[in-house]
Amino acid sequence: MGREKVLLLTGFCPFGPDGENPSWQAVEALDGRALTLSGESYRIRAVEVPVSWKRAFPTVKEALEAFSPHLLLMTGLSAGRTSLNLERVFINVAEGKDNDGEERHGESLVPQGPASYFSRLPLRDLRRRLLQRGIPVDISNSAGTYLCNGLSYQVLHYLEERSLSLPAGFIHVPATPQLVARRQEKALQEGRGLAALPSMSLETIREGLWEILLALSEGVLMRSEERVPQVP
Amino acid sequence: MGREKVLLLTGFCPFGPDGENPSWQAVEALDGRALTLSGESYRIRAVEVPVSWKRAFPTVKEALEAFSPHLLLMTGLSAGRTSLNLERVFINVAEGKDNDGEERHGESLVPQGPASYFSRLPLRDLRRRLLQRGIPVDISNSAGTYLCNGLSYQVLHYLEERSLSLPAGFIHVPATPQLVARRQEKALQEGRGLAALPSMSLETIREGLWEILLALSEGVLMRSEERVPQVP
Amino acid sequence: MGREKVLLLTGFCPFGPDGENPSWQAVEALDGRALTLSGESYRIRAVEVPVSWKRAFPTVKEALEAFSPHLLLMTGLSAGRTSLNLERVFINVAEGKDNDGEERHGESLVPQGPASYFSRLPLRDLRRRLLQRGIPVDISNSAGTYLCNGLSYQVLHYLEERSLSLPAGFIHVPATPQLVARRQEKALQEGRGLAALPSMSLETIREGLWEILLALSEGVLMRSEERVPQVP
Amino acid sequence: MGREKVLLLTGFCPFGPDGENPSWQAVEALDGRALTLSGESYRIRAVEVPVSWKRAFPTVKEALEAFSPHLLLMTGLSAGRTSLNLERVFINVAEGKDNDGEERHGESLVPQGPASYFSRLPLRDLRRRLLQRGIPVDISNSAGTYLCNGLSYQVLHYLEERSLSLPAGFIHVPATPQLVARRQEKALQEGRGLAALPSMSLETIREGLWEILLALSEGVLMRSEERVPQVP
Repeated sequence: MGREKVLLLTGFCPFGPDGENPSWQAVEALDGRALTLSGESYRIRAVEVPVSWKRAFPTVKEALEAFSPHLLLMTGLSAGRTSLNLERVFINVAEGKDNDGEERHGESLVPQGPASYFSRLPLRDLRRRLLQRGIPVDISNSAGTYLCNGLSYQVLHYLEERSLSLPAGFIHVPATPQLVARRQEKALQEGRGLAALPSMSLETIREGLWEILLALSEGVLMRSEERVPQVP
Repeated sequence: MGREKVLLLTGFCPFGPDGENPSWQAVEALDGRALTLSGESYRIRAVEVPVSWKRAFPTVKEALEAFSPHLLLMTGLSAGRTSLNLERVFINVAEGKDNDGEERHGESLVPQGPASYFSRLPLRDLRRRLLQRGIPVDISNSAGTYLCNGLSYQVLHYLEERSLSLPAGFIHVPATPQLVARRQEKALQEGRGLAALPSMSLETIREGLWEILLALSEGVLMRSEERVPQVP
Repeated sequence: MGREKVLLLTGFCPFGPDGENPSWQAVEALDGRALTLSGESYRIRAVEVPVSWKRAFPTVKEALEAFSPHLLLMTGLSAGRTSLNLERVFINVAEGKDNDGEERHGESLVPQGPASYFSRLPLRDLRRRLLQRGIPVDISNSAGTYLCNGLSYQVLHYLEERSLSLPAGFIHVPATPQLVARRQEKALQEGRGLAALPSMSLETIREGLWEILLALSEGVLMRSEERVPQVP
Repeated sequence: MGREKVLLLTGFCPFGPDGENPSWQAVEALDGRALTLSGESYRIRAVEVPVSWKRAFPTVKEALEAFSPHLLLMTGLSAGRTSLNLERVFINVAEGKDNDGEERHGESLVPQGPASYFSRLPLRDLRRRLLQRGIPVDISNSAGTYLCNGLSYQVLHYLEERSLSLPAGFIHVPATPQLVARRQEKALQEGRGLAALPSMSLETIREGLWEILLALSEGVLMRSEERVPQVP
């Protein structure tokens, strides 16, 4: 009897003073769901990733080895963005301080690694699909230089080095209304004004990720079964 | 037997090529709901306002006369805003072309009218309340010079002229995800790129308006029954 | 022999940690310049206004009484704006902490004063003129609720109360490149990133103010000599 | 007798309906200037690049072969940016329609080329230097997917393929006040409002580029003479 086919989702744990991270909230809500296509059943597995230069990639690597997923969809929060951002490219640069207090100042993520890796997702197809479903979406040309970019680069480098053709990519999600309101409330209590950042409801984020999974399952996994990757 | 006590809500009809207007969608969803406070029952009545320099104010005036409401909460769409915007002030200026093709170029709304009227809502209290409920909100110092501002100015001028102390104000709402996605899809089909505008789900908008009604009912209507206005 | 005819300009002193205020830098550079039109000679006088709820208006009031100007053009910094902003309206609200540490929380500037006053400048004409001269400009519908708005409201209230028809208005100017760079440098030294705010060179700001003075002198002062106000 | 040592600058020709391109205006103003450092004299050569998928790279390639420069600094306009943008990375993607009417829809610039190339300029050092000189500057992680990115990618690919270590990079410049005002004026004449984009004066842009040249000459060319590249 065959092993369960897994679609792996990741989200980040809360960052800094925030009590929650919408990227994890959204993927956690999809954890365990089944998705059946052409008679094949896939199970969604969600993994929470620490906001840590040292521990983020090992967490995902471990999950890749444990689940041998047919798809890897990573997500993270980018407060200030207005829509789901399908990230196109991840660069070999690390900047910023993580939850452990560790800071990077522009160093390479992988010394001697290539300048960047592209997302392996069909971004234009996904954009069309999400817009048809009424979900705001943009293709983004920069995932920044913090951990969202860093994790993605390291994962894609790992897959490339091992010649694994696993479809993999990263989606930036906006802040939720709750998170925006909490930051505003805190600022107000401290006597500062704070204009509301753009937000997207957890329902819309989750729905968007679900549509992406459906589209990828139909298009990528089903149409080209021979391309389905197997992480050893 | 006494007459039904009404809380009057208004939203605008769709503007230009848009097939829907979130301000009307949100208030329509609240139409007919009852709200009981301190043994008094209030009924929400929603009225759709045409995007027309000539017909907007008469529509609301007629509703004021028909319902003699205890509260008037007007709403309108401001695509590009990130949160519910509690408008503070409405100025005696008209600019822009309406759905009838009629255009204003900076004329006064009311010749010899005062420069502006303030909202009659307790904006800071409402802001605190909405933030506590997890709903992004800003106090805005400009409702622009188009119909949202124009209608509000005319209504407040009307109330002022008749010495009616009806609590009245205007809330700008963001575009919905569906509206943003539709505009993006259209742009894409026409070969243009279009970055996603910020959005707010209809559920959050409706929930925000409902919280405003609750807060106003408790605070304004209940606490100071003697101040409850009656439009003759 | 007649007294010197004065065009009065004001700018604000530096705010908070900033070592300079472009509004004062720009008007200071015009101080003392002569402007001759139709045989009449005007002298520009510049006055620096303290960032103080208590002292700002008295400073300008004193200058009005000392100079009996034919025009009052007030300016202030609004870091973040992209162009010269011709402010349209000033509202009866005060918010924020000044250089003296005094804070306002939404109180009226003038108890029982009207909700707002309009600028007395021909904003659309000025906009057209500045654009023809290659200077970015916007008509703004909100001068905020801090001292720029406060001073303007108080001055216009003063003029109105005394039935003085002095042409008077307020222009918000962007930050200068130097100011933006200094803020960025400071942030960088403190280990924070800081995206560059928009800026406008002092030369362009000064040139814009000069064009405004020319336009106002030609149009307002010259064309309708009978309307030239005299502060007693 | 040795040949003249050249620092090569490029800017783009006007795009679409614009009558001018600040990137070319700025580098044209530096054309022919000499720069002497440690007894070595460098001459600035400026080349105008067509906004054309087919002709942009060949134009720069020809100039590289003609001048064998010691430095290549490419520039382009990005209307909407607030500061000089030191671009960090150039990706293997082409999107958008050029002046010839030719359009790209996400194709690779170089089939089988790497995902991206990094700028060869010391971006953090340049940022510090420009800020000290009072010039707003940001390090940008995306040069977009239009011709500015495309040209840079193709040039760096060319240098890489030939193992040429020429210091080379790309700077995005903001619109000038004149360009912004002209676009606003045009919009106004067509009955549309148009908020002013951020701008930077040609003087500040030119001064910024000059500071970059000085810094690069001192640091890159002088300190490590052995690394000075020679395009064959």
